[in-house]
Amino acid sequence: MNKLADINKEFAKWYQDVLELSEFVDQSPVRGCFVLRPYSYSLWENIQKVLDEKIKETGTKNAYFPIFIPESFLKKEKKHVEGFSPELAVVTHAGGKKLEEPLVVRPTSETIIYSMFAKWIKSWRDLPLKINQWANVVRWEMRTRPFLRTIEFLWQEGHTAHSSKEEAIKFAEKILNLYKNFVQDYLAIPVIAGLKSESEMFAGADKTYTIEGLMHDGKALQMCTSHVLAHSFSKSFDIKYQDKNGKLESPYCTSWGATTRLIGAIIMSHGDQRGLVMPPKIAPIQVIIIPIFKDENDKTKVLDQSKKIKKILELKNIRVDIDEDDQSTPGSKFFKWELKGVPIRIEIGPKDIEKKQIVLVNRIEEDKNLKKSFVKIDKVDFEVENLLEKIQKSLFFNAKKRLENNLYKVQFIEDFGARLEKNNGFYQTGWCGSSECEKKLKDYKGTIRCLLQSKENDSCFFCKKSSKTDVLVAKAY
Amino acid sequence: MNKLADINKEFAKWYQDVLELSEFVDQSPVRGCFVLRPYSYSLWENIQKVLDEKIKETGTKNAYFPIFIPESFLKKEKKHVEGFSPELAVVTHAGGKKLEEPLVVRPTSETIIYSMFAKWIKSWRDLPLKINQWANVVRWEMRTRPFLRTIEFLWQEGHTAHSSKEEAIKFAEKILNLYKNFVQDYLAIPVIAGLKSESEMFAGADKTYTIEGLMHDGKALQMCTSHVLAHSFSKSFDIKYQDKNGKLESPYCTSWGATTRLIGAIIMSHGDQRGLVMPPKIAPIQVIIIPIFKDENDKTKVLDQSKKIKKILELKNIRVDIDEDDQSTPGSKFFKWELKGVPIRIEIGPKDIEKKQIVLVNRIEEDKNLKKSFVKIDKVDFEVENLLEKIQKSLFFNAKKRLENNLYKVQFIEDFGARLEKNNGFYQTGWCGSSECEKKLKDYKGTIRCLLQSKENDSCFFCKKSSKTDVLVAKAY
Repeated sequence: MNKLADINKEFAKWYQDVLELSEFVDQSPVRGCFVLRPYSYSLWENIQKVLDEKIKETGTKNAYFPIFIPESFLKKEKKHVEGFSPELAVVTHAGGKKLEEPLVVRPTSETIIYSMFAKWIKSWRDLPLKINQWANVVRWEMRTRPFLRTIEFLWQEGHTAHSSKEEAIKFAEKILNLYKNFVQDYLAIPVIAGLKSESEMFAGADKTYTIEGLMHDGKALQMCTSHVLAHSFSKSFDIKYQDKNGKLESPYCTSWGATTRLIGAIIMSHGDQRGLVMPPKIAPIQVIIIPIFKDENDKTKVLDQSKKIKKILELKNIRVDIDEDDQSTPGSKFFKWELKGVPIRIEIGPKDIEKKQIVLVNRIEEDKNLKKSFVKIDKVDFEVENLLEKIQKSLFFNAKKRLENNLYKVQFIEDFGARLEKNNGFYQTGWCGSSECEKKLKDYKGTIRCLLQSKENDSCFFCKKSSKTDVLVAKAY
Repeated sequence: MNKLADINKEFAKWYQDVLELSEFVDQSPVRGCFVLRPYSYSLWENIQKVLDEKIKETGTKNAYFPIFIPESFLKKEKKHVEGFSPELAVVTHAGGKKLEEPLVVRPTSETIIYSMFAKWIKSWRDLPLKINQWANVVRWEMRTRPFLRTIEFLWQEGHTAHSSKEEAIKFAEKILNLYKNFVQDYLAIPVIAGLKSESEMFAGADKTYTIEGLMHDGKALQMCTSHVLAHSFSKSFDIKYQDKNGKLESPYCTSWGATTRLIGAIIMSHGDQRGLVMPPKIAPIQVIIIPIFKDENDKTKVLDQSKKIKKILELKNIRVDIDEDDQSTPGSKFFKWELKGVPIRIEIGPKDIEKKQIVLVNRIEEDKNLKKSFVKIDKVDFEVENLLEKIQKSLFFNAKKRLENNLYKVQFIEDFGARLEKNNGFYQTGWCGSSECEKKLKDYKGTIRCLLQSKENDSCFFCKKSSKTDVLVAKAY
């Protein structure tokens, strides 16, 4: 059987192994572009479904904008083009001819979307305008890793326009909260939310909010961001509306996105030495049934019973499958579905049928005595629902414990610099607000992940002058 | 109020008007790329939802492949590259550098998907492999029109591999049938199904099946296609598997797609002088409630009642909205929602509330006496469900009548050439099978849309030699 690299010693190798062996993604012939195989794509579909519903509940409507952006549009917002120009893929030829103006493959759609907003927003009655797009985007990254940093990735990008800055800030915060709740409740990943420092803000933003998670190896992962763009794009794209008094005003904009990076977060938060672990609420398959038999007579009986149980569970909207492959042993099937991280395995054999029971196996329980439980067939739906809920809660609980155990309150760089560089984890410290002090973190491979609400430090971690705010420092993906 | 061009005299202008005035699409700053505004995008979402479920029922799984294809890959299948090379958009620069090998923006994904199939298919046990992708594609068209022919469009593309040619043909036919049923049952558009002649086949296909619809102006629209690729791509991409006897074999492939063109088909099939007409089963909004009142006192009463009715309908999963805009008159709201093609309008006024009734208005009924009906409030859900079903059926019935009335059985080009060129419609005639005779249709702006099952003609429409098959001839979009 295939073996994964040691998750605690060679995490990067483990990540690569688990993605390949679970048939999750595959390297494509294009550098840095990965194929999402059916198993990972169906995880993305489940994420989309929940997130899409929640986004629509905020009054945001989906639309679709072109993948190509005229190069001149990108240049209209100075900071934006500075941030993105090193990463652009450019179409110079089309239809057999050189284009008069090159077209950029969207790295994000602010420029094309706000150029349309300028046509659509005329009066205060057109505000707020809230648009979301599910799309692919391209950023020419040099070092890529599936889900975390890829040349093409899938995401949703929301873009809104409001009549006041307060309303825009409130909406950007509402979306951050939506992301936070989604990530915690569905992906079972606890996060720390806060504002980015200026150097880490989105190119063109006035404020960037982020949620940061702590991965298995102790590194931080930026999960979702929400930006207050304020007037930057509405001025560059000349969006103007008449307010109630007939005065021409510029609206205040926001943009926000969640990407396939969330899939990487799930893997790096919950995965273990046996493979992936899918949080039940979002798992492509929540329950896998393994029929166990020796002869043809038993086979029919066991398969019939498996199908009955599948139907019972499907009535409760549980995503369930039977592994009917007759070329593999039950043992290799156990291994396969544990690798794929299916939360519950059901084993059914002829003796179980006689006893009117089945075996439930909990993917994340390490204690052999607690891992398996015998369940009466007439209670299987109830027991499976309970166990799914229990696993979802345990995953969040375990990840929260890890985050708490690895969040260090520290004062000065000399106290934590060496640890930051060697051991990973989150460090809460004070900061004077200067970019000079912030830059010093690079020497230890750390960055400010976000500013914190709670203020426990009086002095800056580096210059020891008065601290303006506490910050969360970590090594990050 | 805005007026649409005459649908019978200036259909192309009418199409443009209706798309703009109903806020359906908008021209983007990139030539030939259109913005799908929320109303048209939600129609696409409804189409996706139904089609995706039906595709999954065939055992096909969704996945995602890169948007970029190495130029050399496209060249591996000779006919394929000949067909697509004039339409390619090419990325030559990325990350600030010239690429060693240019990347093509996918016009369709056979080449990249079959290159992955070659990695995944090793044994007969890996077959059939059935993969579908929802994606954007780019074809550099010179003359574009929203939905019908655009530089970027959205679609699903299915790709399968089978162990026998018979199985591949059967599956391509199954998908054609799936498309046909979907288009007829949900979009209410009757179609004629059949094989394409060789000159109209997909570049790289062995057989192309099509469904063709007749639009309001009498022109044909190719709606969906399903291709038997047979060995073309599996040989170019060296896909090989061990059969049950250990022999290396090439699988037989199929590919098939449905695009945002279906939205154009809905508009051009059902639209009328008042605007769009959305088939109820797929309509973004099935029922619009217009509250009618004169003073504040009535306003509260009428809005309360409107909200109650909205809730009642939502319990039946009816997609319903209330137009609460207090800056417009009821008259302008009627006009607006008729333009948007919402199947049912509900009018509620204070007098109706007293009588415990509401007014149902049928979007497609032309007879003034039948258009409106008074309905008791306690029966509103039942009556709305009935009327939605009735409208769905009528739309299909009317479109079918038009197709039957415009399907002409003809013998020789001299009998129908002039009519084909001047008046549109479908012509059934005989064909010897030669491409020379087929080409003669170009003189009359016609093409063979598909080969027909029924054979009623003994001679070819042009050379008058023995006919091999009846064909459907029309002017097409």
